[in-house]
Amino acid sequence: MAISMTEMGLRARSASRQLARAAAEQKNGVLLALADQLGLQGAALLRANRQDVDAARAAGLSEAMLDRLMLNEARLAGMAADLRRVAELPDPVGEVFDAKTLPNGLKLHRQRVPIGVIGVIYEARPNVTLDVAGLGVKTGNAVILRGGSETLQSNLALARLVRQALHGAGLPEDAVQSVEDADRARVTELLALDDYVDMIIPRGGAALHKFCREHSRIPVITGGIGICHLFVDESADLEAALNIIDNAKTQRPTVCNALDTALVHRAVAAGFLPRLVQRLGAAGVTFRADPAAAACLPPDPRVQPAGPDDFDTEWLSLVLGLKVVDGVEAAVEHVAAHSTGHSDGILTRSDANAARFVAEVDSAAVYVNASTRFTDGGQFGLGAEVAVSTQRLHARGPMGLRELTTYKWVVIGTGQVRP
Amino acid sequence: MAISMTEMGLRARSASRQLARAAAEQKNGVLLALADQLGLQGAALLRANRQDVDAARAAGLSEAMLDRLMLNEARLAGMAADLRRVAELPDPVGEVFDAKTLPNGLKLHRQRVPIGVIGVIYEARPNVTLDVAGLGVKTGNAVILRGGSETLQSNLALARLVRQALHGAGLPEDAVQSVEDADRARVTELLALDDYVDMIIPRGGAALHKFCREHSRIPVITGGIGICHLFVDESADLEAALNIIDNAKTQRPTVCNALDTALVHRAVAAGFLPRLVQRLGAAGVTFRADPAAAACLPPDPRVQPAGPDDFDTEWLSLVLGLKVVDGVEAAVEHVAAHSTGHSDGILTRSDANAARFVAEVDSAAVYVNASTRFTDGGQFGLGAEVAVSTQRLHARGPMGLRELTTYKWVVIGTGQVRP
Repeated sequence: MAISMTEMGLRARSASRQLARAAAEQKNGVLLALADQLGLQGAALLRANRQDVDAARAAGLSEAMLDRLMLNEARLAGMAADLRRVAELPDPVGEVFDAKTLPNGLKLHRQRVPIGVIGVIYEARPNVTLDVAGLGVKTGNAVILRGGSETLQSNLALARLVRQALHGAGLPEDAVQSVEDADRARVTELLALDDYVDMIIPRGGAALHKFCREHSRIPVITGGIGICHLFVDESADLEAALNIIDNAKTQRPTVCNALDTALVHRAVAAGFLPRLVQRLGAAGVTFRADPAAAACLPPDPRVQPAGPDDFDTEWLSLVLGLKVVDGVEAAVEHVAAHSTGHSDGILTRSDANAARFVAEVDSAAVYVNASTRFTDGGQFGLGAEVAVSTQRLHARGPMGLRELTTYKWVVIGTGQVRP
Repeated sequence: MAISMTEMGLRARSASRQLARAAAEQKNGVLLALADQLGLQGAALLRANRQDVDAARAAGLSEAMLDRLMLNEARLAGMAADLRRVAELPDPVGEVFDAKTLPNGLKLHRQRVPIGVIGVIYEARPNVTLDVAGLGVKTGNAVILRGGSETLQSNLALARLVRQALHGAGLPEDAVQSVEDADRARVTELLALDDYVDMIIPRGGAALHKFCREHSRIPVITGGIGICHLFVDESADLEAALNIIDNAKTQRPTVCNALDTALVHRAVAAGFLPRLVQRLGAAGVTFRADPAAAACLPPDPRVQPAGPDDFDTEWLSLVLGLKVVDGVEAAVEHVAAHSTGHSDGILTRSDANAARFVAEVDSAAVYVNASTRFTDGGQFGLGAEVAVSTQRLHARGPMGLRELTTYKWVVIGTGQVRP
């Protein structure tokens, strides 16, 4: 029988205290054992996953959803490789920083500690289960996983493996718990467990993030929603701009750091926009153009007039908004009004305009002459990524291991009292 | 006529974008002008404050509350001195950290930026108005202030001065707004302004913090509630322990970092506890002792048996809980069960026990051989303090200027695209 969410919270809190004290080797041992078991127990995992896929197909889910849901040998091997990679990263827990000695002789420093208990609410992909469990164990955080009902069997089988690996390493199994009940009421209950859970990470669409923000008593890391912009300045290297926009739009259009809107300086619009439509159109991109951009383009079935909401849409597909602007100031204004604060950039040869754009655009990642597709924990050299935050507290942009920690102040005295 | 909270949010957001770009000199100019005006306009401020004090006295508020509420020449001078001191601190905005060049040539760094718009909800003290306004301007954050109804006239007069100073420096007046309406419904409306407000700081009692956590869609920095412990280990220097406990309990008993419970190792309890009661009793302290502690003490009207909730009470007064424990493990367990995670310490000559206590106690500030009264932004060398956080995300313990900022990633390329 499934335990209550409160009981789950209590167990997570207790387990988190033990996990917080675990040595790096012990935590890495869990990750490596788990990677091994993915190979050894692959057949059983694939059987559990098959139940989910069959049920989802019977329920009429789209092929795209079925693909996200499906596990196979190659995906298991990829998950195992990810775990081994995370095991090799340095452990952030215990790191000392800002050490100083005060005039009264008190020695002071900040020391990284785990956040405690993290609740993760996610949708179809079962790989998130292992991903989050691995990063949680590595950083000494207990996690409560709440996957989508469509992956219930896969998630339960994966969570069982994780718990076995924890047990084998002498760590509390309850450091990783998976909600076994598909009832959505459990999500609301999880969001109210502020006595036991320290942070909520939703991984899913805008509706899930909004729901969490509105219902949670626990701090929520919202993110992963990107309406991303690139501004082609008057002085841009237009050949490079074509490459960068092509990459940002088409290299993987379904993800949050893919480009949504190209802003083009009026002085180069007439020359640049037709080349852009030709280049990206050949890759299957269609366009939503504002009147000034449309005026630069010949009639083309792939180019439609931009509707009232088009510049506030995260396309997640091969659609690109096009807008002509008068310069860097207008570009900054458009970004301020329409960006979700994820990734926005300028393509320019002007150091002054680059500096102005960087100073005035306040997104989690601000680019000069590069593709927005780099906003990613792995690409930024963080080694791993649990989420991309577009909110402003605690962490912004790609969240790696360090962003799954907090700190405590340690004060060492010799009898000091406050005068 | 008062404007709506939504309109206030919109204005704050717009002002925050201008303030974020202001130079350090311009922001410091506001603080210095404000400090001057506190002197020049002192009479008018004191008249406004007198209205609040008279109304509060007529409403039967306690003398302690009236004292918190009251301004006088000396307090205005203190507030002016605080503003001048903050003006001299380095500006955290723009600071660059974690700079690196990736193998593909991308240059990456994190850069401190203001959080944006901060809502502060507080109770009686009008000095908070200037304090928060000053720290907000210094760090480039717009603030929306919601003081208690009992200080409405004082707060309006102070906010007017702040807005004049902003105007004089060419910065938007709406960077500091004060809610002019004493209706409590405004608090709930402020907590729902997640489109415009990035962080909520409640400054007040436990009930206010709880209300904010339960009703806010915006991240809330909870804190300022301290059930603080000191553990007197077997090997402690007992003379030093008396000094430290005396200081932690009596130097300013009404604040959050004051001591609430002394845990005493069984091996030294019989010798130490009578000395402790004698020393602190002379300063007016009364005691709540667990049975083992009571057994070490002669009958004394100042020592009562600890009731069921006494070890979960933040005393904020000259009351001290006393408990005998079997050693560092039991002390850590008691702290884990009863501490609010604010400030807890060990008094010991054993490096091993000190290390264990520091490793296993997970409070915002963990002490060895020093008074808990040091948990304070000024005492920790942060220059200023906006709050003491006891929650785990974003910042823990004393929050200074840096803790009122976040960061953005800046990525400078030469045409890089993602392979």
